Amino acid sequence: MHYTELIEKKRDGFTHTKEEIEFIIRGVTDGSMPDYQLTAWMMAVCFRGMTDEETAYLTDAMMHSGDVVVLSDLEGIKVDKHSTGGVGDTTTLIVAPLVAACGGTVAKVSGRGLAHSGGTLDKLESVPGVSVEKSLDEFKRIVRKTGLCVIGQSGNLDPADKRMYALRDVSGTVPSIPLIASSIMSKKLASGAEAIVLDVKTGGGAFMRTVDEARKLASLMVKIGRHLGRNTVAVITDMDRPLGMAVGNGLEMREAIEGLTGKIPYNDPLMQVSFVLAGRLLMLSNIASTQEDAEIMLKKAVEDGSGFTRLRSMLEEMGGDVRYVDDPNLLVRTKRIVPIYKDCTGYIKKLDAKSIGLAALLLGAGREKAGDTVDPAVGILMKKRCGDRIEKDEPIAYMYVNDETNLDEAVSKLVNAVSVADEKPEDEALVYDIIE
Amino acid sequence: MHYTELIEKKRDGFTHTKEEIEFIIRGVTDGSMPDYQLTAWMMAVCFRGMTDEETAYLTDAMMHSGDVVVLSDLEGIKVDKHSTGGVGDTTTLIVAPLVAACGGTVAKVSGRGLAHSGGTLDKLESVPGVSVEKSLDEFKRIVRKTGLCVIGQSGNLDPADKRMYALRDVSGTVPSIPLIASSIMSKKLASGAEAIVLDVKTGGGAFMRTVDEARKLASLMVKIGRHLGRNTVAVITDMDRPLGMAVGNGLEMREAIEGLTGKIPYNDPLMQVSFVLAGRLLMLSNIASTQEDAEIMLKKAVEDGSGFTRLRSMLEEMGGDVRYVDDPNLLVRTKRIVPIYKDCTGYIKKLDAKSIGLAALLLGAGREKAGDTVDPAVGILMKKRCGDRIEKDEPIAYMYVNDETNLDEAVSKLVNAVSVADEKPEDEALVYDIIE
Repeated sequence: MHYTELIEKKRDGFTHTKEEIEFIIRGVTDGSMPDYQLTAWMMAVCFRGMTDEETAYLTDAMMHSGDVVVLSDLEGIKVDKHSTGGVGDTTTLIVAPLVAACGGTVAKVSGRGLAHSGGTLDKLESVPGVSVEKSLDEFKRIVRKTGLCVIGQSGNLDPADKRMYALRDVSGTVPSIPLIASSIMSKKLASGAEAIVLDVKTGGGAFMRTVDEARKLASLMVKIGRHLGRNTVAVITDMDRPLGMAVGNGLEMREAIEGLTGKIPYNDPLMQVSFVLAGRLLMLSNIASTQEDAEIMLKKAVEDGSGFTRLRSMLEEMGGDVRYVDDPNLLVRTKRIVPIYKDCTGYIKKLDAKSIGLAALLLGAGREKAGDTVDPAVGILMKKRCGDRIEKDEPIAYMYVNDETNLDEAVSKLVNAVSVADEKPEDEALVYDIIE
Repeated sequence: MHYTELIEKKRDGFTHTKEEIEFIIRGVTDGSMPDYQLTAWMMAVCFRGMTDEETAYLTDAMMHSGDVVVLSDLEGIKVDKHSTGGVGDTTTLIVAPLVAACGGTVAKVSGRGLAHSGGTLDKLESVPGVSVEKSLDEFKRIVRKTGLCVIGQSGNLDPADKRMYALRDVSGTVPSIPLIASSIMSKKLASGAEAIVLDVKTGGGAFMRTVDEARKLASLMVKIGRHLGRNTVAVITDMDRPLGMAVGNGLEMREAIEGLTGKIPYNDPLMQVSFVLAGRLLMLSNIASTQEDAEIMLKKAVEDGSGFTRLRSMLEEMGGDVRYVDDPNLLVRTKRIVPIYKDCTGYIKKLDAKSIGLAALLLGAGREKAGDTVDPAVGILMKKRCGDRIEKDEPIAYMYVNDETNLDEAVSKLVNAVSVADEKPEDEALVYDIIE
């Protein structure tokens, strides 16, 4: 087999065999397929696509390109939840403790935030002392003790994806559904998940701009999961608006703690979506048989404080200073808190999630490129959401600020992210579809 | 401007501006556009194509990526003839001397043979002593003295094409008409040609398999030439059969000398195509006004020996031992001459040019990869052409052999290249179209 022939085959619209896909991924992993052939092949995939079977072979080959985490010595069905990247989306920090409190086992390998999207690891690290770099044994010990643990990728997990992901970004080959699906699923599967709930975002700030595109990606990932023996469900949710009110690592940790301690109403979007995701995880764990049953259990875990206790225990086991968990206001102490006004009256028609994420990035809450440091305390706390009435003299948000270098730009980005109408807009869906 | 954005632009079907094309070719030339972005972009071009204007900008930018040969201090219109690569196609060695004998100025920079296709430089070097590596001054001196010279590429001619050509070969991006056209035309234009006749081959052994594809490539190159101020004509010729009877460098040089000295009938395919190409060159040189006028002059140059004299003078000026020109049988002295039989009777229905080229390659007449050495004396001399009657005991060809290592394989390749039918097939066209 020659790489050039395989590129030509895909270019001409033919379907790869399992052996061909494995040959390519071996070459990606050991470096014998040069970058210039890999990008040409990925561009051909962008145009020609892949069959579901090809994509499953690709995912399987990528998953096995490096270490595969084995969690079978942990009891129960190890579930994981993955989001394609949101703004103000702190569902993981609400969902994982609640599922654990209901008897589930959440063993999750997570990523860092990039650009306007936040990452769970950064949110965990907003609690001083927390270390997300754990050995596999330590990871399992924490899962055994608390029912959940979220750590960073370590070791040689899915090296094929690492190389492909880096090259896709610079070769115009990002928006290929089979390449996105195999990238996400191979990492999830390599990190040991036995059942997976995917939160596929759609809207202006997301990879998938339309519900149709999101549905395509979601269906493909569910099929891949099943094909490789992992029960998988995808929930398609909205990313046009920020999900919660907080955008910034400490602010989002505080918001999660508020959610877990009953300080956020159940009909709030963040709680609604959290319950849907957590419900599906409980169903995949064979703990609940319907979403309704699950929600009863989940609400009980909020009300009796058992969800919060799980989060607190996990953070403590990870080295965190629990004084910050017990008084989460300590997480967000900044030099200034700046009120933001829209300077008009009306109803909020649209909140552009991506721009709000970028405004928080300008304050230092996120990273522009991998390796940048983040300030855990800074960010944006929205006071209004879509459909809310605003007045001239009423802040629409507060900015938590330490470094003022880009403050003006951040303010103008945030203000421009808010569109106002004279009439109250209709409520938009939060969850568009569930693919199983 | 960023390379990734430009790749995405082409991927999404948009048209590049002149500035964008120039930015890409600057990056190709100075290395700031990495291989992996260049191949991704070229793959996007394979799928999306380019407008005629984009292709002209591309050609212009490539042509100016390195040295541009200036021939304006030579008198007359400097004409060049380019073939997209043939088997047994020694037209350059017949056309250039005849055009020079009729008063034209042929200043040609040529390439080496590769795979089944021969190259004019290798044919010139079959004459002992000939050196094709000449300085520009030496090149011009020979053109002034003899009216023609053919040398190899030297210096920093079209470095953008060198890089793109090498990467296209290994990235599945060869069969893109705009990329082929710009590659050919940028080299021709950089080497100083003022008017160009293109011989675009079509058929099984050619880049362009069908007449339609060949016509597309030809039209595009003619348009590019005009757009950049060079009068250009394309002749679309058949490459399903070898054009002449000889395949091998010395054998083809001998055949050219036979053609120039009247030993090949004018209605022979090699002579017919040579007259069409030479006629067009004389018309572009403002020496003949019609093809008919041109043919009268060309036949005179055969009959009075002035064409042969031009070739002999050029080879002498290039350092060649003219005893080999005066007695061309000296060019093809090999250890063995092996008669080849088809072992059946009937009419030759098809001669697969590519397979015959590959059979000659196995004897050592060509190079598998750049840098391989060739044996100038070996090759294949066909005794039969399409439509000819063959008998069991009558050789269809002779192989001129020194190294017998791959002889058996070469024989079977050659025998299999010949298809035989009971009835005489109809004559096929030699020249399909002329695009001007």
